[in-house]
Amino acid sequence: MDGIRILITGGTFDKHYDELKGILTFKNSHLPDIIKQVRITIPVELEINQLVDSLEMGDQDRQNILAACTRASEDQIVITHGTDRMVDTAKVLGPAGLNKTIVLTGAMVPYSVAGSDALFNLGCAFTAVQLLPPGVYIAMNGRVFPWDRVRKNYDKGVFESI
Amino acid sequence: MDGIRILITGGTFDKHYDELKGILTFKNSHLPDIIKQVRITIPVELEINQLVDSLEMGDQDRQNILAACTRASEDQIVITHGTDRMVDTAKVLGPAGLNKTIVLTGAMVPYSVAGSDALFNLGCAFTAVQLLPPGVYIAMNGRVFPWDRVRKNYDKGVFESI
Amino acid sequence: MDGIRILITGGTFDKHYDELKGILTFKNSHLPDIIKQVRITIPVELEINQLVDSLEMGDQDRQNILAACTRASEDQIVITHGTDRMVDTAKVLGPAGLNKTIVLTGAMVPYSVAGSDALFNLGCAFTAVQLLPPGVYIAMNGRVFPWDRVRKNYDKGVFESI
Amino acid sequence: MDGIRILITGGTFDKHYDELKGILTFKNSHLPDIIKQVRITIPVELEINQLVDSLEMGDQDRQNILAACTRASEDQIVITHGTDRMVDTAKVLGPAGLNKTIVLTGAMVPYSVAGSDALFNLGCAFTAVQLLPPGVYIAMNGRVFPWDRVRKNYDKGVFESI
Repeated sequence: MDGIRILITGGTFDKHYDELKGILTFKNSHLPDIIKQVRITIPVELEINQLVDSLEMGDQDRQNILAACTRASEDQIVITHGTDRMVDTAKVLGPAGLNKTIVLTGAMVPYSVAGSDALFNLGCAFTAVQLLPPGVYIAMNGRVFPWDRVRKNYDKGVFESI
Repeated sequence: MDGIRILITGGTFDKHYDELKGILTFKNSHLPDIIKQVRITIPVELEINQLVDSLEMGDQDRQNILAACTRASEDQIVITHGTDRMVDTAKVLGPAGLNKTIVLTGAMVPYSVAGSDALFNLGCAFTAVQLLPPGVYIAMNGRVFPWDRVRKNYDKGVFESI
Repeated sequence: MDGIRILITGGTFDKHYDELKGILTFKNSHLPDIIKQVRITIPVELEINQLVDSLEMGDQDRQNILAACTRASEDQIVITHGTDRMVDTAKVLGPAGLNKTIVLTGAMVPYSVAGSDALFNLGCAFTAVQLLPPGVYIAMNGRVFPWDRVRKNYDKGVFESI
Repeated sequence: MDGIRILITGGTFDKHYDELKGILTFKNSHLPDIIKQVRITIPVELEINQLVDSLEMGDQDRQNILAACTRASEDQIVITHGTDRMVDTAKVLGPAGLNKTIVLTGAMVPYSVAGSDALFNLGCAFTAVQLLPPGVYIAMNGRVFPWDRVRKNYDKGVFESI
């Protein structure tokens, strides 16, 4: 089917400052506002799969992401995801061998915080998902990596090839 | 040569508010700050070719852009450009047949204004330039168009296929 | 009556980027959103008197502002106004001798543009209107000036005592 | 002495997102940038007294703030402070009976996060410190409270009279 599904799972990308508790947490996704802001003309379907910090994702959470990808009617899927466990989720999606192009992305700085990389990364993922053949990829730091040749360098806060 | 050249020509993307004159104009490019903000790990060469509103671009200005593309040592070039005459510049670059991948992008709302699409569009262009074969393209509204099959719809403020 | 009236007249404070025309103009006031954002607990009444660039204000426009101040049930009135003719409007309001505290303020950079002084200036005016005796004042650049002892220095873009 | 001293103690106002650790913490103060942004024309002296979350302030930290106020050559002092223990610090400064005007302020949302109240609150404090007689005050939510007649309502996240 035409169009792109954006599967929202939370992560730094969507973190929101709770002023009563004084912490960064999740409330709603910013994606509906972002889609308007960036003036996308391709049909986009937003789906909130979960809103969690990826450090707290368990096996079942990853299976829920896989299930959502499987059941999606679109052939092109962008997943917003926490960066700390993005590679782990990619390793669940990759071997599943769905005949779809799936691109995970995220942010090092939340969309709602000054100096965020969220919009840039989303642009990268949104373009990669349209141009790449079926498979599972990670789009971060202006690069696109196949799911099985990437790791996060936690010291530098960037993704790199392996 | 490895790496990506970003050729800066101005446009809405880089407009800056001059508080003494009370108008949007050009001062410096925001691209050096943006490159840091989005945490790109690929070598990037920034080149300010001109800082103008594309409505004021003449033939010579377009030739200057073509000359910069020709002389660039990189095979991948992103051009930030005003949206109003982006297609016109693409029509100068396309027929030149350089053996490089060139992607023009811009913004409907300046980077320095709330609700800007600049970072998203830059992410789209930055990814397209790495994934597409040699040719000249426009990346806007989350889509990538070949230079000779795109127009700006001025009423809607979006780019569309022709 | 208790509470503070904010009389909105436009000016740089409220300018909005029109992405179709590529110009800064007026659409709606940002004040309703701002009032929520800054978590004011005092009753506030917002009134849009006009939405214009103060360079385009005529005598009748100033009379409309005076009329709104006269008819307001509140004794404390903040007026958001373009900086270029703020002093001129103050010179209409001051001699009218209303038994109210009226503070004009504005912005050198629109609220919707990065690096805006709008929120700071509004905070200054909002506090001055509560602490000062009846009279007409201008709050800009972190200072509060009586209406008849202030001018805008157009070269420096700041207000100063005369 | 003429001029206003801004004593920086940290708090939500100055929190910064650490993208490697994924937490809000302190790095540098944003006040130097803010002072430029809001175009203040009064001489301002910035002093970083400490950069802490006020929940972690101890008695000695409060004595350090008092000492800084005592030794300041200015008669007007604004203190940026965490909101959770702002009243506690005010209760140390108030009884000290310095012959200076001291205004504490802070933010519910950090300056670096979208939707911040920091600039507005700073404007309130900056104006209050110039208009009020010697004493210790808290400027929050668009109101100015004497130090001994205010509390933070933690459920609502606002300051109120007692």
